[in-house]
Amino acid sequence: MALIVQKYGGTSVGSPERIKKVARKVKSFREQGDDVVVVVSAMSGETNRLLDLARFIHPQARGRELDVILATGEQVTIGLLALALEKVGCPARSYTGAQVPIQTDSAFNKARILSIGEERIRQDLSKGRIVVVAGFQGVDGQGNITTLGRGGSDTTAVALAAALKADECQIYTDVDGVYTTDPRVVNDARRLDRISFEEMLEMASLGSKVLQIRSVEFAGKYNVPLRVLSSFEEGPGTLITVEDEIMEQALISGIAFSRDEAQLTMTGVPDHPGVAYKIIGAVSDLNIEVDMIVQNVGSDGTTDFSFTVHRNDYQSALEALQHAAAELGAREIYGNPRIAKISLVGVGMRSHAGIASKMFEILGSEGINILMISTSEIKISVILDEKYLELAVRALHEAFELAKPPAGVTNSVAC
Amino acid sequence: MALIVQKYGGTSVGSPERIKKVARKVKSFREQGDDVVVVVSAMSGETNRLLDLARFIHPQARGRELDVILATGEQVTIGLLALALEKVGCPARSYTGAQVPIQTDSAFNKARILSIGEERIRQDLSKGRIVVVAGFQGVDGQGNITTLGRGGSDTTAVALAAALKADECQIYTDVDGVYTTDPRVVNDARRLDRISFEEMLEMASLGSKVLQIRSVEFAGKYNVPLRVLSSFEEGPGTLITVEDEIMEQALISGIAFSRDEAQLTMTGVPDHPGVAYKIIGAVSDLNIEVDMIVQNVGSDGTTDFSFTVHRNDYQSALEALQHAAAELGAREIYGNPRIAKISLVGVGMRSHAGIASKMFEILGSEGINILMISTSEIKISVILDEKYLELAVRALHEAFELAKPPAGVTNSVAC
Repeated sequence: MALIVQKYGGTSVGSPERIKKVARKVKSFREQGDDVVVVVSAMSGETNRLLDLARFIHPQARGRELDVILATGEQVTIGLLALALEKVGCPARSYTGAQVPIQTDSAFNKARILSIGEERIRQDLSKGRIVVVAGFQGVDGQGNITTLGRGGSDTTAVALAAALKADECQIYTDVDGVYTTDPRVVNDARRLDRISFEEMLEMASLGSKVLQIRSVEFAGKYNVPLRVLSSFEEGPGTLITVEDEIMEQALISGIAFSRDEAQLTMTGVPDHPGVAYKIIGAVSDLNIEVDMIVQNVGSDGTTDFSFTVHRNDYQSALEALQHAAAELGAREIYGNPRIAKISLVGVGMRSHAGIASKMFEILGSEGINILMISTSEIKISVILDEKYLELAVRALHEAFELAKPPAGVTNSVAC
Repeated sequence: MALIVQKYGGTSVGSPERIKKVARKVKSFREQGDDVVVVVSAMSGETNRLLDLARFIHPQARGRELDVILATGEQVTIGLLALALEKVGCPARSYTGAQVPIQTDSAFNKARILSIGEERIRQDLSKGRIVVVAGFQGVDGQGNITTLGRGGSDTTAVALAAALKADECQIYTDVDGVYTTDPRVVNDARRLDRISFEEMLEMASLGSKVLQIRSVEFAGKYNVPLRVLSSFEEGPGTLITVEDEIMEQALISGIAFSRDEAQLTMTGVPDHPGVAYKIIGAVSDLNIEVDMIVQNVGSDGTTDFSFTVHRNDYQSALEALQHAAAELGAREIYGNPRIAKISLVGVGMRSHAGIASKMFEILGSEGINILMISTSEIKISVILDEKYLELAVRALHEAFELAKPPAGVTNSVAC
């Protein structure tokens, strides 16, 4: 008998029919003898409907009152799911964030969880009840309703699993797991049975948007086994866990990529302290998020400085740079709004040299020019012209044999 | 500087535009220097939408989980109104029933208020904030969300006004006050400036459905001056207050009536103890509400027994009576599903004889046959054939001169 925390997202509870289906799925776990705590999101579209109402009233709606409004989305779902569970013969009880309580700080609209009271949940579980908890919300020290920001329901589920020391935290979504790369680009992309928290963080932040990144960090920190599964199909999904438990590690776990990037370069920048801050500061002052930053060693007392931003921010970033260049006396500014980023991710890289050179060799043999390179312990990212994106991903996927399960890793994961 | 509790119903907050309008109205009171606590209902249609969702999931949806769902309706409105107030420059803070807290018993779907914590509200008022409270909901001793049943927002407003010892509780609705009778039936029906709690109770329960009856009882019990006003038009509305404060009382305050009634009669009922219970018990066992009950003194050891029910319940009540009649050995059962009830209401009746005889005289002179009569201290009700309803109401309204304000009553009520 295990204690499982399950989270169902907005699409999975998007209609009364789907809520009934979730109830039947939860019941099947209960019938196997598991204790189940279910975390749900608002029905799909509901949060946007509430946001539209709020913004019609007050275009800059935010803060305490916005959270009062948004928190109702999940509150409706918990009541409906509890009713659906009762209807199929599973005693159930719903809790809002404030009722659990899920204590947070007072940063309305993006609160952080401080602690979770587990007493009421334990009591209900001991009476054989399913516990249904509203995701995305909590309560601060003064009893104010808070929300955790978009995707916060994943974080709620992981935090509950950590507090309850659950055996597994299952995130039900509309994909059936984490893939070696996007199956829409590579036909034989393979679902991973297991992946480490670190790799998942790199994959998620790089565009394979399956899980909210904060929830993966949280799961890693508290060592909560996290499983991504489909609400609509049967299957074991992907287990995200600590590296030690992944018996035989493939060199590369997956290939993440993102389109919609733009590159900016300033050449002939005087090479002295404080220059990087002046360049990046000018851009981040406009609330533009900077992704990759590369600076080369200079030779003639000047250096070249490049970075990437989201394509939508390209024009504003370019203008900010022009001011900064004039101030710094830089030689030239140029940019490319049509680039893409590809990253190889894998903890196996740590102990195996030569991954980078193999990657560059493959890209070179396809005639693809690399514009920028950046590396971390378990990741190599390259920037290239957007038109080569699919070609590059397919070539790398094939050359690193990602469609084949790595030797020694068992595929039979119980679920 | 007064402390005013205002309640806006579902129609008054039925759209974002109307919520903005309410905010401007509340602001105008604040600018006069009043402290304002606002109680709001769910946006019109919202409670039914939520109820439909719940019933789709579970046709017999009720109890704890239904209240979790329904309470979200008011929670959305408080957040939106607080945002709208902030937008027009009035600092505001919203509270759910649980946040106030409004403590109730645990009778889900029809909870009763036990006590109200006024500390948070007082703090906000002292900081110059408008306080916006969700009507219709509370929290029980175990922290469960409860609702007070339909129309419960009026009760919330009155209970808050009583707890805060407010100077006045204003109920904004889609009519501009309480009338001597329904203006759709009598063209020159007159808005009452004042009416006593007792009269209002008789008027409300008899079909002039302006206020929820529980809220009037509550206001009377705690002596909270209650004012009914229109959200959409200016005007002083009707003040409902204690009898003493109504200087010169008219004999009759108003004429209430209800259609949709049905009458059932059992004749030749053996006249011994327990018979009334057997007859009415048979009907109320089916959860049918019985309104007027009349039993005449018998002569030959039997008696005739009549009562009225809602027209929708006529057939079921008739069937129940047939069983009871066979058991009791009664002579005959007959009924009339097309009757109406008319009631004269007025505290002045107490000290003035002859109201009843004048009423019967007027009806007789119009050729209207009276089927049943029932009286209380401040009310005389008659049952008559439905087709005479309008004729009777108009004749009585004219004969008792209700279109004319009673002498000595000032019309200039400050608002």
